[in-house]
Amino acid sequence: MLVAQGLGAEDARITAEVLLSADRRGIGSHGVARLKRYVDGIKNGVIRTHPDVKTVRETPVSLVIDGDGGMGQPLTYRAMQRCLEKARTNFMCFATIRNSNHYGIAGYYVLMALAEGMIGISLTNTTPLVVPTFGRNVTIGTNPIAIGFPGKNEKPFLLDMATSTVPRGKLEVYARREEPIPDCWACDASGQPSTNAAALLDDMIKRRGGGLLPLGGGDEMTGGHKGYGLSAMVDILCGVLSGGMVGPEVAVSDNAPAGVAHFIGVINPAAFLGADEIGKGLDAYVRTLRNADKAEGQERIYIAGEKEYNFEVKYREFVPLQKKVFEILNKIGDEIGLSITEYKKGKD
Amino acid sequence: MLVAQGLGAEDARITAEVLLSADRRGIGSHGVARLKRYVDGIKNGVIRTHPDVKTVRETPVSLVIDGDGGMGQPLTYRAMQRCLEKARTNFMCFATIRNSNHYGIAGYYVLMALAEGMIGISLTNTTPLVVPTFGRNVTIGTNPIAIGFPGKNEKPFLLDMATSTVPRGKLEVYARREEPIPDCWACDASGQPSTNAAALLDDMIKRRGGGLLPLGGGDEMTGGHKGYGLSAMVDILCGVLSGGMVGPEVAVSDNAPAGVAHFIGVINPAAFLGADEIGKGLDAYVRTLRNADKAEGQERIYIAGEKEYNFEVKYREFVPLQKKVFEILNKIGDEIGLSITEYKKGKD
Repeated sequence: MLVAQGLGAEDARITAEVLLSADRRGIGSHGVARLKRYVDGIKNGVIRTHPDVKTVRETPVSLVIDGDGGMGQPLTYRAMQRCLEKARTNFMCFATIRNSNHYGIAGYYVLMALAEGMIGISLTNTTPLVVPTFGRNVTIGTNPIAIGFPGKNEKPFLLDMATSTVPRGKLEVYARREEPIPDCWACDASGQPSTNAAALLDDMIKRRGGGLLPLGGGDEMTGGHKGYGLSAMVDILCGVLSGGMVGPEVAVSDNAPAGVAHFIGVINPAAFLGADEIGKGLDAYVRTLRNADKAEGQERIYIAGEKEYNFEVKYREFVPLQKKVFEILNKIGDEIGLSITEYKKGKD
Repeated sequence: MLVAQGLGAEDARITAEVLLSADRRGIGSHGVARLKRYVDGIKNGVIRTHPDVKTVRETPVSLVIDGDGGMGQPLTYRAMQRCLEKARTNFMCFATIRNSNHYGIAGYYVLMALAEGMIGISLTNTTPLVVPTFGRNVTIGTNPIAIGFPGKNEKPFLLDMATSTVPRGKLEVYARREEPIPDCWACDASGQPSTNAAALLDDMIKRRGGGLLPLGGGDEMTGGHKGYGLSAMVDILCGVLSGGMVGPEVAVSDNAPAGVAHFIGVINPAAFLGADEIGKGLDAYVRTLRNADKAEGQERIYIAGEKEYNFEVKYREFVPLQKKVFEILNKIGDEIGLSITEYKKGKD
């Protein structure tokens, strides 16, 4: 589908791999369900299929890349490959990328580092959906933080979290169910926390104000200023360090360059104690957390990334796809004469 | 007082400067009020006044330091100086430090980087006070994250936050006032969130269980697993990368080595767009946040670090000291024949 829109075969392959990785890891919101938006983005020129990508600055341990409005996944994948290459000899490398687009799950690029036994980091700014502490309008993104450390015998520790309490999709789920939401999820057009998901979404869509709250909620009493601070930190590392877009500038319309900015990096364990000792240390740490006493009514303490690895195991044979997503994919396929196999109802 | 306990003059000067910096910035909990604990730490051998500090590993962009039980402030101050030196020529440098002690406010070492126009980072693990998501006992620390970026005309952005919702001191304040606390602050011995600060503290002190909750509270619904993930990330960067202590091992008794571990670093803006462009970009970003529409009843949107800078201005002439802290200092002084000037009641 992407190739039919003019994207190069290798770029399309990379993008597909990032999307499929999300579906395999149980993060359907960032999987092939996004293809429609990418196809639309290419059609209306927000995503350029043949960008003039430039390395604005390069040192032994850093890169600044201008993506010229290209697809986020191939841009970031290639930047990560360069970071890995440099980190092998120079112990670490970090890259900022400006003028990019949505890059899929932040964790994908960390997985690339983990696959080579390296520590990986991946941050991105996003379209503004979050209200800063004491604000009333969306000003910052859900700006995720992903970081991963390789274990020796245990699975890697892989944290991949938005810096908002929840994504907007969670409000949509509760609005459909007509259930109240916790008051740390979103605030209304006056800036007050609210539990009415349907009214909140209506205000957000009609741009009357309000939006998602940072991790910690709408108040300093509950730590909301910390989530706000983390979101701003991500914006600075991605958008300010690269000279790209930040805050309310990012991806605000379907007709202007999205200007999404990323910050990725690799740390070679050899910069510190080395892969063997760090891997052993991580294994022991993960086991300590896992074996800690559980709260009443709880059976497990999870390690960051564990739930996603469990999905990968569960979905090894096949990945379930919502019928709605299948229909969207089929519709895109129809437009370009691609036939998609019949939808089969599975157990999930 | 520290010199009287056998600490070298330069180490004592550095430690005093870090403590005073906290008081000047309105963070009295981490100021000279801590001196008593440091003096006690030296007396009972937890803090070694003349440690055999070793550089375990060194690359152009990294350091692993074994602090041999020395005072946290001089160890970290000197490591930060080495990071700054390396970052000037090699664009960045990160250091992990094991077998250290409490190092004061995390932000101090970031201020050292900011003073030289550099980006600074400072993390530390701490004594276990926090319960992981779905746990019931303290297993991880309040593990703060401090990171700062220099502006051009605006003050730096300086985030310095514990990864728990609040510090334990906040529970003590509410217990004294006999007021209920928000349910995202702490959980009881069964692992359930509770609003009874006095009972929670009693459980914690008598080690019956319970403890502080990570940023986001005690549940995945409110994002508590994200605060837990961030706390674990800090533990790994500090304790696992250095081969030091982690989680429940850190500073658990007054008679054993504290084994606190830190992770600090410096990024030279020249690694990315350079000081001038990044400074201008940061200024613009900070103004965007500040000028965003305010919630009803709010007059300001704060930037990370702004409240602390306001204290520095307010306290330029003199820093108020609680009478209780003055009395503690005087008591230490009496023991070693140091006289402290009379306590004067100020306006604050």
